[in-house]
Amino acid sequence: MLPERIRESLGLALSLAEQAIGLSDPNPRVGCVLLSADGRQLGAGHTQAAGQPHAEVMALRDAAARGADVRGGIAVVTLEPCSHHGRTPPCCDALIAAGIARVVVAVEDPNPLVAGQGLARLSAAGLVVELADVATADAARELNIGFFSRMQRGRPFVRLKSAISLDGRTALPDGRSQWITGEAARADGHAWRRRAGAVLTGIGTVLADDPRLDVRLVPTARQPLRIVLDPQGRMPAAARILQPPGEARIIGPGRADLPALLADLGSQGVNEFHVEAGPVLSGAFLDAGLVDELLIYQAPVLIGEGLPLASLPQLSDLGAARRWTLIEAAPVGADLRLRLRPV
Amino acid sequence: MLPERIRESLGLALSLAEQAIGLSDPNPRVGCVLLSADGRQLGAGHTQAAGQPHAEVMALRDAAARGADVRGGIAVVTLEPCSHHGRTPPCCDALIAAGIARVVVAVEDPNPLVAGQGLARLSAAGLVVELADVATADAARELNIGFFSRMQRGRPFVRLKSAISLDGRTALPDGRSQWITGEAARADGHAWRRRAGAVLTGIGTVLADDPRLDVRLVPTARQPLRIVLDPQGRMPAAARILQPPGEARIIGPGRADLPALLADLGSQGVNEFHVEAGPVLSGAFLDAGLVDELLIYQAPVLIGEGLPLASLPQLSDLGAARRWTLIEAAPVGADLRLRLRPV
Repeated sequence: MLPERIRESLGLALSLAEQAIGLSDPNPRVGCVLLSADGRQLGAGHTQAAGQPHAEVMALRDAAARGADVRGGIAVVTLEPCSHHGRTPPCCDALIAAGIARVVVAVEDPNPLVAGQGLARLSAAGLVVELADVATADAARELNIGFFSRMQRGRPFVRLKSAISLDGRTALPDGRSQWITGEAARADGHAWRRRAGAVLTGIGTVLADDPRLDVRLVPTARQPLRIVLDPQGRMPAAARILQPPGEARIIGPGRADLPALLADLGSQGVNEFHVEAGPVLSGAFLDAGLVDELLIYQAPVLIGEGLPLASLPQLSDLGAARRWTLIEAAPVGADLRLRLRPV
Repeated sequence: MLPERIRESLGLALSLAEQAIGLSDPNPRVGCVLLSADGRQLGAGHTQAAGQPHAEVMALRDAAARGADVRGGIAVVTLEPCSHHGRTPPCCDALIAAGIARVVVAVEDPNPLVAGQGLARLSAAGLVVELADVATADAARELNIGFFSRMQRGRPFVRLKSAISLDGRTALPDGRSQWITGEAARADGHAWRRRAGAVLTGIGTVLADDPRLDVRLVPTARQPLRIVLDPQGRMPAAARILQPPGEARIIGPGRADLPALLADLGSQGVNEFHVEAGPVLSGAFLDAGLVDELLIYQAPVLIGEGLPLASLPQLSDLGAARRWTLIEAAPVGADLRLRLRPV
């Protein structure tokens, strides 16, 4: 019975962690469920906004509010509890102080400098420490793919979003693109944008479409930083992207160094980075091999002549094309959401 | 128990009917299962090649070969049994003569001139006649979508096949297209080509790729007729499309009238018509509204500049684009098979 209760609790902890999307950045999305030794649920919680309590402390508070005694109990948590003092005290210490006897962790901390230290600290204090199955570890890592990227590579996970026709057009030849995809796809796009610490576009898109690039079609507790590359200093003061909610940053005049930009954003706590740009900027990211995921909304329509997803250098032959792996093809309204990652 | 046995038998009859793909054209793909009154399976069969026995007669022969007595039994059949003398005697008569007491039919004959006559003939002879549920009727109609098209519209069901990149390219700018998609997609394409009574391409594709356009990556009992539109009489005598197996027909010199071509093929017994052509001919079919299904293999690759799926007239605005309904998105190897039909 108990292993089954722990599996269930891992699933619940992952759903709780999802609720931290649009809330906890730059901290990882983490969920925690507390069980008694015989498997009764005593408390649960997820990471709050930066500087606010992490999942473990929220779950302990939840148990306390219910008057539950967690001593001798089990903590099921989607990421290795932290062992360092950041803006909040270490979660390891909170679990130890509360008298938790056993900790089940979905995945280790991705930071190579601290990975395993939380688990070691718990073990040293006499707690039984276990890692979850591989599928749960994968799900926990996927939920924090940007945090893992920043910890392991020092840069955000880059997701390039585009809305295209069946024949690969993003707009008519004159740039009109409203709307190739339907309402459901646009709302879904905002849900992915919400995951991002920062959103990028180019000045060409600002001048052509005057987009806000904020998150408004889905609820969110925070807005991503909106960044515009403006090499020739053409940004209009009245551009909607400069208005609240959320902040905006103009990079330019001058040509941006994309890898340096990513490193800079990583150091500023951007986990997932969302690129919604025209063909030139999209092509620059793709050609430099900087795109970790393509997020494509494909509308069931043929357009004929129009603008491409990306301007790319001429291929010498088809075998030279960079291959991607399709990780998802899901209907969204009348459109299809495709997600691909580099092979 | 018996309704469940009949449901199972309808499913089996549909699988048997699928085995008539690549065999029974121009006759429909039909499966038949014979049950005793208490639900034991006595025999089963599917339509053979044109001029050979239909499904009901094959099932009766199967029962006879097993020494089973079908008198008082049930015939489960995916299409209304025929009541007219064609190249073979009417199946209704065979069922009546065999002493079958009850007939369950997935869907009525699509020919408006004969629909229901088979059922009426069976009823008049004292047999109990029932129609299957709507989902089974839909599956039976789908399996014979070309036969239904020919009977109801006097023309084949037109399926336009293309292999494209994520950004909608079918080839590099110089026409090189081998290979955008992988082996699994190419074999799958042959399985769809096998369904067709005829395959069409244009002289441009013949001159550029010298394709065979026969069915060879999947087993088949017959080859579709291969048709080339050659308005300027440029067909090379050594073209591979003119070689066996299967027959080839050149249409030209002179510009083909596409609706007249379809009517002509319909009158010649072509149920499904498979178009595998370059952008000009594909565009002509699309622009004329003659495409009943898009069959697109989408490779997880970005090509940049290249040839489009179809040359289409310039759209005045995005709202003017013809909309399609995505009816399937299925991974095939590393590629994605998309099937769409007009809204």
